Amino acid sequence: MLVPMLADLSVGHEDWEVFLASAALTLFVGAALVLANRGADFAALTTRQIFMLTTLAWTSVAAFAALPLALSGLGLSIADAVFEAVSGITTTGSTVMTGLDTAPPGILLWRGILQWLGGIGIIVTGVAILPVLSVGGMQLFRSESSDRSEKVLPRSAQIASAIGGLYLALTIACFSTYWWLGMTPFEATVHAMTTVATGGYSTSDASIGHFASPAIEWAATVFMAAGGIPFVLYLQALRGRPGQLWTDVQVRWYLAVLVGASLLLTLWLVRQHGTPPLEALRSAAFTATSIMTGTGYASTDYGLWGTFPIILLFFLKCMGGCTGSTTGGIKMFRFVVLYQVARIQMARLVQPSAVFRMTYNGRTIGEETAISVMAFFFLFAVTFTVVAGLLAALGLDYLTAMSASVTALANVGPGLGPIIGPAGHFGDLPDAAKWVLSAAMLLGRLELFTVLVLFTPLFWRG
Amino acid sequence: MLVPMLADLSVGHEDWEVFLASAALTLFVGAALVLANRGADFAALTTRQIFMLTTLAWTSVAAFAALPLALSGLGLSIADAVFEAVSGITTTGSTVMTGLDTAPPGILLWRGILQWLGGIGIIVTGVAILPVLSVGGMQLFRSESSDRSEKVLPRSAQIASAIGGLYLALTIACFSTYWWLGMTPFEATVHAMTTVATGGYSTSDASIGHFASPAIEWAATVFMAAGGIPFVLYLQALRGRPGQLWTDVQVRWYLAVLVGASLLLTLWLVRQHGTPPLEALRSAAFTATSIMTGTGYASTDYGLWGTFPIILLFFLKCMGGCTGSTTGGIKMFRFVVLYQVARIQMARLVQPSAVFRMTYNGRTIGEETAISVMAFFFLFAVTFTVVAGLLAALGLDYLTAMSASVTALANVGPGLGPIIGPAGHFGDLPDAAKWVLSAAMLLGRLELFTVLVLFTPLFWRG
Repeated sequence: MLVPMLADLSVGHEDWEVFLASAALTLFVGAALVLANRGADFAALTTRQIFMLTTLAWTSVAAFAALPLALSGLGLSIADAVFEAVSGITTTGSTVMTGLDTAPPGILLWRGILQWLGGIGIIVTGVAILPVLSVGGMQLFRSESSDRSEKVLPRSAQIASAIGGLYLALTIACFSTYWWLGMTPFEATVHAMTTVATGGYSTSDASIGHFASPAIEWAATVFMAAGGIPFVLYLQALRGRPGQLWTDVQVRWYLAVLVGASLLLTLWLVRQHGTPPLEALRSAAFTATSIMTGTGYASTDYGLWGTFPIILLFFLKCMGGCTGSTTGGIKMFRFVVLYQVARIQMARLVQPSAVFRMTYNGRTIGEETAISVMAFFFLFAVTFTVVAGLLAALGLDYLTAMSASVTALANVGPGLGPIIGPAGHFGDLPDAAKWVLSAAMLLGRLELFTVLVLFTPLFWRG
Repeated sequence: MLVPMLADLSVGHEDWEVFLASAALTLFVGAALVLANRGADFAALTTRQIFMLTTLAWTSVAAFAALPLALSGLGLSIADAVFEAVSGITTTGSTVMTGLDTAPPGILLWRGILQWLGGIGIIVTGVAILPVLSVGGMQLFRSESSDRSEKVLPRSAQIASAIGGLYLALTIACFSTYWWLGMTPFEATVHAMTTVATGGYSTSDASIGHFASPAIEWAATVFMAAGGIPFVLYLQALRGRPGQLWTDVQVRWYLAVLVGASLLLTLWLVRQHGTPPLEALRSAAFTATSIMTGTGYASTDYGLWGTFPIILLFFLKCMGGCTGSTTGGIKMFRFVVLYQVARIQMARLVQPSAVFRMTYNGRTIGEETAISVMAFFFLFAVTFTVVAGLLAALGLDYLTAMSASVTALANVGPGLGPIIGPAGHFGDLPDAAKWVLSAAMLLGRLELFTVLVLFTPLFWRG
């Protein structure tokens, strides 16, 4: 909060006081918690405690992150501020704000910082915590050293520092590229942070479209796509093992879907709208990457492209990128498993007595893991329906309710339709809908089970 | 075909010749097939042959059923006639026809007969064939005597005759009720056949709404609901074991969802539209039952009720009734299994070492069956997306493409929106869309796997 304070101070905007006050309050509560828990042994957490800690950490960070937003001169309600903060920290990128182009630098920087921190936060959660908790098939990503829950916190710290440097380097590379291509240093900073984190907050209501620069669009496409790849693989590549970056089954599927979807959209734009091929390819690749990685930048109002692109993008939204990256959604590794299950089910119909083996990156997967993955898929579908139903009951129309539900759960950003589509924003929704969507963003970010398990009686028994 | 011929003859309509010609052609091809296969041992079918036979039987019946529709004076194209016949035999009830109120009796009766035969057809397929093929978790419904695939055809014949009598009795009860409540004998006949089969074809463009009779609406609600219950349970009840009708877990869930959805819709109609409570309850129960059982009758244009009912009805469409009945969709038993899997996944997160057991009607379910059920759910979602994508690529709008896809796959009938909604029809869709939807209806009716397995290389190997 001190960084945006300095930014506001440098242009003489009064919001610097808001950031200072928020920082002081946060520091006070934080220090009190640290003092109160001095001597507690955080290395010996039980599984239940990790569940609690994970959910509480994300919700309380979001709550304190909302402070400057609520207190600033923007006139945001509590629901607005919490929505915006949750959307930031979960790297969703849905916004209730308009007039970004004239907003004070502090707030714009704060939104960028939130997404940047949320990005590294979810990478660490996905690599160090969720595999230990075995959430929705994440046990696939357990390494031998990560098997024991007692070591979750020390290991998280290790991973955070190992990946943190890399994450910072990628952000600097992105910043330099944007700056070189014509953004101001400030714009380049905010966009670099929200690109690498696949977050999507921008300094302009027109998002990336504001710059009207094909080169910037292409740069954003490349860096967003890079943000959807497991960061552990980058780390291994740097340590002299680049091979896995190309042989990893999740990365292969991810890139294949990305390229396939981009080409389909290109074809559609050329044939249905007569867009020149190169321009079509650029828009298509940018939009497909932005949606699939859950960044949510827009270079144009793709809501006007027609029904087929809408359904394709809807599907990409649900899909998401690779686990261990900053993207959201169901994630590619689950589709790898689901595809194999479906294929084996077919094969078993013809040869009931044959033995079929599921593999992931060459290792055999047990039925238990497959069930875990499929249960996640089912739960995602059910949660999607419940959230859409709640939003509809609150008065939202069909397209808005459906697309808001999926965009929140998959942490994408914009929805579809005139209200919350790429050309709109979430500010006009009723407050109740903002609360529902804030909950949905957190649910989606923490892979559903991590949060929902807290609401089961068994969790609290004994 | 001779029955509608007589109906047309009785009113002196020239279409009687069309039915006679179709009957002759069908008889000729049928007789030729019987003669050509004389001496073949149908009791010794292999699993592959059963897959082929099931899919071919349903497609060829639909093809011949389309003959009178294509040849009649209605001016239907081949795509129209096939669509209407497939929609009939799969008990979907989507129609390309308008002007039903003035249509000749032969065609109206033929559509009713198609649904009625399709209804008993799917009951027998669901009870005698799919469990043996282990399609999508249907192995849950294997009995000891049905375990061996060689006996599929003799057993099918047994079951067809045992359930056939009951099916006929239920139809006659429905006919009598409708007649007594004011339908003409002809209207009562057609509607009784399409009610018990949960098909939905009507003798009027306004469907059941044409009669403007609350009593008829309630009667239809009861008989549609009855059509969604496994017919084997009725048989057991008649044989002195009525208990299972109330203790069967699938039936309990089915009735609970039906009552719950009806009450939610009632509440919505009363609060949002100020409908008088009793009228609201009637409309709500009728519509929820019509949609969930996949009948597709309409008493009013529920597309105008608002977004929340639309999403709820969308969900009910996917859900469907009980397996072993005439309904379509994912079916209730799969949700019973999916719910248990999700619950156990949650429990396992808290107590990783505990052993949890899934049960269905008191019997333990293996993981293999659970995977089979979940694979079906996944495949349903994928097929839904692919069909919706194809329809969108053919130029249909968002709501039409999405709702047409689900209404075809779940064999419901009407879609949503101004074109194919309860007040519209499928006649104006492009021919290519009709072919896609015809395929989707067959896919859905045969539980996806039965048809899709024919397209795997493994099926044809060796």
